[in-house]
Amino acid sequence: MEAYLDNSATTRCSAKAAEMVMKVMREDFGNPSALHTKGVEAEHYVKEARAFFAKNLKVDEKEICFTSGGTESNNLALIGTAMANRRAGNHLITTSVEHASVDNTMKYLEEQGFRVTYLPVDEYGVVSLEALKEALCPETILVSVMYVNNEVGAVQPVDEIARIVKEHNPNTIFHVDAIQAYGKYRIYPKKEGIDLLSVSGHKIHGPKGTGFLYVNSKVKIHSIVFGGGQQKGLRSGTENVPGIAGMAEAAAECYENLEEKIDRLYALKDRFVSQVSALEGTKVNGHTGRDSAPQIVSVSFRNVRSEVLLHALEEKGIYVSAGSACSSNKPSVSRTLKNMEIDKELLGSTLRFSFCFDTTEEEIDYCIKELGELLPVLRRYVRR
Amino acid sequence: MEAYLDNSATTRCSAKAAEMVMKVMREDFGNPSALHTKGVEAEHYVKEARAFFAKNLKVDEKEICFTSGGTESNNLALIGTAMANRRAGNHLITTSVEHASVDNTMKYLEEQGFRVTYLPVDEYGVVSLEALKEALCPETILVSVMYVNNEVGAVQPVDEIARIVKEHNPNTIFHVDAIQAYGKYRIYPKKEGIDLLSVSGHKIHGPKGTGFLYVNSKVKIHSIVFGGGQQKGLRSGTENVPGIAGMAEAAAECYENLEEKIDRLYALKDRFVSQVSALEGTKVNGHTGRDSAPQIVSVSFRNVRSEVLLHALEEKGIYVSAGSACSSNKPSVSRTLKNMEIDKELLGSTLRFSFCFDTTEEEIDYCIKELGELLPVLRRYVRR
Repeated sequence: MEAYLDNSATTRCSAKAAEMVMKVMREDFGNPSALHTKGVEAEHYVKEARAFFAKNLKVDEKEICFTSGGTESNNLALIGTAMANRRAGNHLITTSVEHASVDNTMKYLEEQGFRVTYLPVDEYGVVSLEALKEALCPETILVSVMYVNNEVGAVQPVDEIARIVKEHNPNTIFHVDAIQAYGKYRIYPKKEGIDLLSVSGHKIHGPKGTGFLYVNSKVKIHSIVFGGGQQKGLRSGTENVPGIAGMAEAAAECYENLEEKIDRLYALKDRFVSQVSALEGTKVNGHTGRDSAPQIVSVSFRNVRSEVLLHALEEKGIYVSAGSACSSNKPSVSRTLKNMEIDKELLGSTLRFSFCFDTTEEEIDYCIKELGELLPVLRRYVRR
Repeated sequence: MEAYLDNSATTRCSAKAAEMVMKVMREDFGNPSALHTKGVEAEHYVKEARAFFAKNLKVDEKEICFTSGGTESNNLALIGTAMANRRAGNHLITTSVEHASVDNTMKYLEEQGFRVTYLPVDEYGVVSLEALKEALCPETILVSVMYVNNEVGAVQPVDEIARIVKEHNPNTIFHVDAIQAYGKYRIYPKKEGIDLLSVSGHKIHGPKGTGFLYVNSKVKIHSIVFGGGQQKGLRSGTENVPGIAGMAEAAAECYENLEEKIDRLYALKDRFVSQVSALEGTKVNGHTGRDSAPQIVSVSFRNVRSEVLLHALEEKGIYVSAGSACSSNKPSVSRTLKNMEIDKELLGSTLRFSFCFDTTEEEIDYCIKELGELLPVLRRYVRR
């Protein structure tokens, strides 16, 4: 049996999304910038995708900017607005548990002379609103907070953050990295006070190499990629039409009967959490149930090194992550767990299990059964 | 009948490349950064692609950096090296006929305080080597010249430029935008003195949203996208594995029996050029034959507006470009033609016909026949 429980690293492209990619690559392959029918046909797919996402987020079509993925979306959001609004101030705020594509972009912006505040989180990985209030100052031009943490599934109080930020200064830009949230939550940026929202295609069963950034039309933003002036000049380069169309297809599938599927996903998560908690020497990190994201569970296994357990599970056909797994093969210590101040001993003993709408009870139960058998064996051999 | 003669705008993804994309999207969908088998399998495709391109260019595997396309490759090449080598000098050299993704990136670098020289071209669109020699100075850190011009098919004397640049200062970086050349020419950067080479997937029957930059390992270069540190930190973001694998597949097809296919392409081009020249009031821009690229022909049609002719041809199922067609639906006056100083009257009367290895004699003849019928009719109605 196999259990792919690493859906927060990447998902399998859905059949419908893949078929769409195939169709556009082979049949409607024109360059959307071309003036003839083949171009217009290709452009139509981009327009349709844009219309879908605009409707899905209740924003304007012109506010959707397609990118090559979540990382580029986050880079464009941060660099693009920091550089464009530099005259208004040089202070940026983010959290200590962001994905590397926000964290390292902030580090780059620090090199460019910006001052960055990294907000602390509590033991559940949830950002401190008090610290946010303290950090906001007249020079703050941008606040960037992720919706769902990719390592432990913590859900940040995005609505409250928006309220605090906008009450302090309505011109301060609020960016949300929704890469682990989009497709699981209904998100309405305008209602929620979100100015910029990053989304990735391959986390929602769309093709890799796709993503978009929602940019409120009132936000001043610069390009970070220059060229032919596609997408109203914000992101040059021939649009990845098959990828864009495929991502829209995948998103549409996600949002079909979303609430039902989310209920099912929480039931699966509860099943996993209660069973894994019953195993000896385990600790589930962060909140569980509806206070956490439906698809992510972080578990520490006392006296077992995460890599050893990861590979032992792999031999049983069970695929999971150590740390965030988005960081190029480097099994380094997790910033999120460290900043949640979990027991030091557990830092190197933690795995992430991440589900998707296709995950089954059988996979969950199989994983738990194998964990139950493996843990005592591994603990016998792997003494510290 | 149909004749798609807009292959320099974009090509149809080949069946083999598309199948590869499909396979990786659906079957081997892992995240290459994941530590388990699904990750290793995915990483294998990236490694295989890297190995193919390295062998094809006779460079090291670690010198291939995958990007989201030609535009990003050019941006990374220019911004990445200009910023990294700023202390060595602030002068950049390029030509007056580059693609927008070089031209507008140079404009951005000018805003960042760099001085940029735009070399003139002759009436054939070929860059002046004398002007290059005059422009080179102790502050010159980077020279960027395209291999094949996308609008008229002019082939720049890349080897001589490299020799001149390196003789002046071996540390000056030489970037070549090979987006219209790769797949048509055998290019060996190390032998030719090229430090950076930009390639795009969708111009060679690969999927859109793919490309790479060859970066000589001796070149100091900064990232322009920050995050998880993929690709040795040069280009963060989950690799577009299906796209990368598909692009490698397409490139391998291009280079199979290349010389035979190129001979055939030149024969097609000669056939087109001689027939189109025989039509009244036409002028082929730039060199023809082996002095020009095999796939691009720029033709001016006296007393016909290019858009009118483009749409008239479209009605006959013939698809071509006005200008470069890479610039987002804006039919603006071509910089290349302007800088070649072609007859002002012809600037707005020029079309680009671009072929691929699948183009047939029948398509060429059909296009010529329709041109022969349309031109007198259009000229009768469209008086200036």
